Amino acid sequence: MDYEKILPGIIKKNDNKILLTVLDGVGGLPNIKTGKTELETANVPFLDELAAESSCGTATPVLNGITPGSGPGHIALFGYDPVETQIGRGVLECLGIDAPLEKEDIAIRGNFATLDDKRTVTDRRAGRISTEENKKIVALISGNIKEISGIKIEIRTVKEHRCAIMLKGSGLYPNVSENDPQKEGVPLKPITALDRQSERTAKILSEFENKVIELLGKNDSKAKGILLRGISRLPHIPGFAEKYKLNAVCIAAYPMYRGVSKVAGMDIARCGESVDDEIETLRELYGRYDFFFLHVKKTDSYGEDGNFDAKVRILEEVDSKLRIIKKLKFASMAVTGDHSTPAVLKAHSWHPVPLIINSPNTIPDDIKEFTERECAKGILGRIYSKEIMYLLLACALKLDKFGA
Amino acid sequence: MDYEKILPGIIKKNDNKILLTVLDGVGGLPNIKTGKTELETANVPFLDELAAESSCGTATPVLNGITPGSGPGHIALFGYDPVETQIGRGVLECLGIDAPLEKEDIAIRGNFATLDDKRTVTDRRAGRISTEENKKIVALISGNIKEISGIKIEIRTVKEHRCAIMLKGSGLYPNVSENDPQKEGVPLKPITALDRQSERTAKILSEFENKVIELLGKNDSKAKGILLRGISRLPHIPGFAEKYKLNAVCIAAYPMYRGVSKVAGMDIARCGESVDDEIETLRELYGRYDFFFLHVKKTDSYGEDGNFDAKVRILEEVDSKLRIIKKLKFASMAVTGDHSTPAVLKAHSWHPVPLIINSPNTIPDDIKEFTERECAKGILGRIYSKEIMYLLLACALKLDKFGA
Repeated sequence: MDYEKILPGIIKKNDNKILLTVLDGVGGLPNIKTGKTELETANVPFLDELAAESSCGTATPVLNGITPGSGPGHIALFGYDPVETQIGRGVLECLGIDAPLEKEDIAIRGNFATLDDKRTVTDRRAGRISTEENKKIVALISGNIKEISGIKIEIRTVKEHRCAIMLKGSGLYPNVSENDPQKEGVPLKPITALDRQSERTAKILSEFENKVIELLGKNDSKAKGILLRGISRLPHIPGFAEKYKLNAVCIAAYPMYRGVSKVAGMDIARCGESVDDEIETLRELYGRYDFFFLHVKKTDSYGEDGNFDAKVRILEEVDSKLRIIKKLKFASMAVTGDHSTPAVLKAHSWHPVPLIINSPNTIPDDIKEFTERECAKGILGRIYSKEIMYLLLACALKLDKFGA
Repeated sequence: MDYEKILPGIIKKNDNKILLTVLDGVGGLPNIKTGKTELETANVPFLDELAAESSCGTATPVLNGITPGSGPGHIALFGYDPVETQIGRGVLECLGIDAPLEKEDIAIRGNFATLDDKRTVTDRRAGRISTEENKKIVALISGNIKEISGIKIEIRTVKEHRCAIMLKGSGLYPNVSENDPQKEGVPLKPITALDRQSERTAKILSEFENKVIELLGKNDSKAKGILLRGISRLPHIPGFAEKYKLNAVCIAAYPMYRGVSKVAGMDIARCGESVDDEIETLRELYGRYDFFFLHVKKTDSYGEDGNFDAKVRILEEVDSKLRIIKKLKFASMAVTGDHSTPAVLKAHSWHPVPLIINSPNTIPDDIKEFTERECAKGILGRIYSKEIMYLLLACALKLDKFGA
């Protein structure tokens, strides 16, 4: 799609406010006993009422049949092409722990691993050491390896055998091969630059790898070395201020979603972890921004656990708390998900997600239930998630006419 | 979409006739008092009857959320990509006044402006001089500046401070910067070529600018110079004869739509301004062409004025006059709009437009009303406007099988 070619010539600023509410993993599949999905089972009077007053449809997160991770799911909801704008694994690992990753930094996922004295990998996860042990190792490395060739090294615990590493400095490029051989019983692979400008990164990472092995060799942990993976950098994309002329804020309890919002140049609200905290933050910040991204994580978790009934309960609980969004005045608002997480699959899925667009400038249809099957009959039809931003902008009258 | 890759191998000529009826700005939004759109309010028995016998759907003019001008709206209905094939503002200004613009000409929008003796723009619209005064200035310029460096210069009044200029000759390219500083209190910008092949155009326009300033300096009008804007050329695209093997004619009362049809290589019918005149012309020309573009302007105007009731009345009036199109034999015909113009927005909008495709070779659905909400449930679903031409060609059996 060619939005990028059109947008700079038609986007305009006005005072209208937009709200994008993302119920993480909200879509589902029918329960084998009842034939009803989680949303069809749940009693969600507010969402049903909102659907009745709005245009409804379904949104395909990436492409038909493609199951998105949280990164692509949100990148699409923010109006970027999720295939063109990919976020590296190293970056996602850093974002997921709220690490202070800057635009020029190189981000890496690390696995502590067991090596023999010939650098053969004997356990890719070092026996899944505890997070406590991880923290001790990270402290040891932090204390001893602060800088290499003028580049600052920062390492953080994620959990168990996993850590995140940042190289901080300028002029670094991420196109570097991983040392992870992907299987056990074979030696670490050499870290090599895949283009000329990434040679410095490769050299620094090789030296880091050697220093870590030397340091951990004297230690009694099973962790004797480190696998360096997903070497990447924040995508250099125009943020909301530049792209949409929007003063945008992210209200999200989980670091990952705050991180992806930072990639899109949003401000990050400080708020507590509960939906009540988030709603309270939305209310407080209402006067200060013109775009609000409200992320509700709870709806996803029980889907991943395969707990159909708990997901139903959470949907009902979240529904009751959301009523406030109708009382604040938004020129346009959307309620949808970043992807589906059907309890029967215990995982994210590719299914289109129900979508509500509410605005005085859109046509209400005769859909009265916020469910996968009802919304699929709505007037919006089936659109791509990355189109939602453009409908929200249009309904908030922030897009001028294209061509005369 | 990949139509361009397929079409040349499958398009074929036969005697079947196609009619594309465009009700300009036909789509709307609900009236706040009744909850009904203009089409839902109007009594349009012919369009409803046609819908009942046809496949229905809705058409997105450009992209979700993007509001098209008349140019992109029609370019899409003619089966071209409206983002790839953009028509410059200078070209549209010329087309809008029926100026004789040829394929190689350079077209420019002009604003008469007030300048001080240092060429500082003090009023970008020369106090919005009257159209009468404009005509006198245009006559003065026409009488004194007929040619520069072998290139013929033609200037025409549009209205008030606006005029259109054509450079007629070959070997001219339009990639030239505008002299309009876009604000007052600053001097005219230099006109410069943005690529090497446009250098000659830049030189001629600079000379034209100087001559106009010299000429108007002696005059007592507030117009002391000219802002040259939207410097462009007709898009060089294959016309209907080449692209579709169609012998096509445009029946339109307004110059702009005749102009866009000329871009697509259609013949332009001479006809009066009323819908009755247009219908009569359609009947007369029926035997001479195999594609008819019938443009009804009246449906748009009251939308732009925000006059909901008048738009309803016009829809009813037009409906009663259209009945004849069913009596003439067309292998396929479409009724749709180039965009919506909801009275509540007083402007073009991005909303998908109701669409009827009528042909013995398409499946009638159970839609019995030509409205935004009913057509949205039709068998065609929601398509892009640029796909309509291909459905019309297919239904008229003018497209061979693709691949064996």
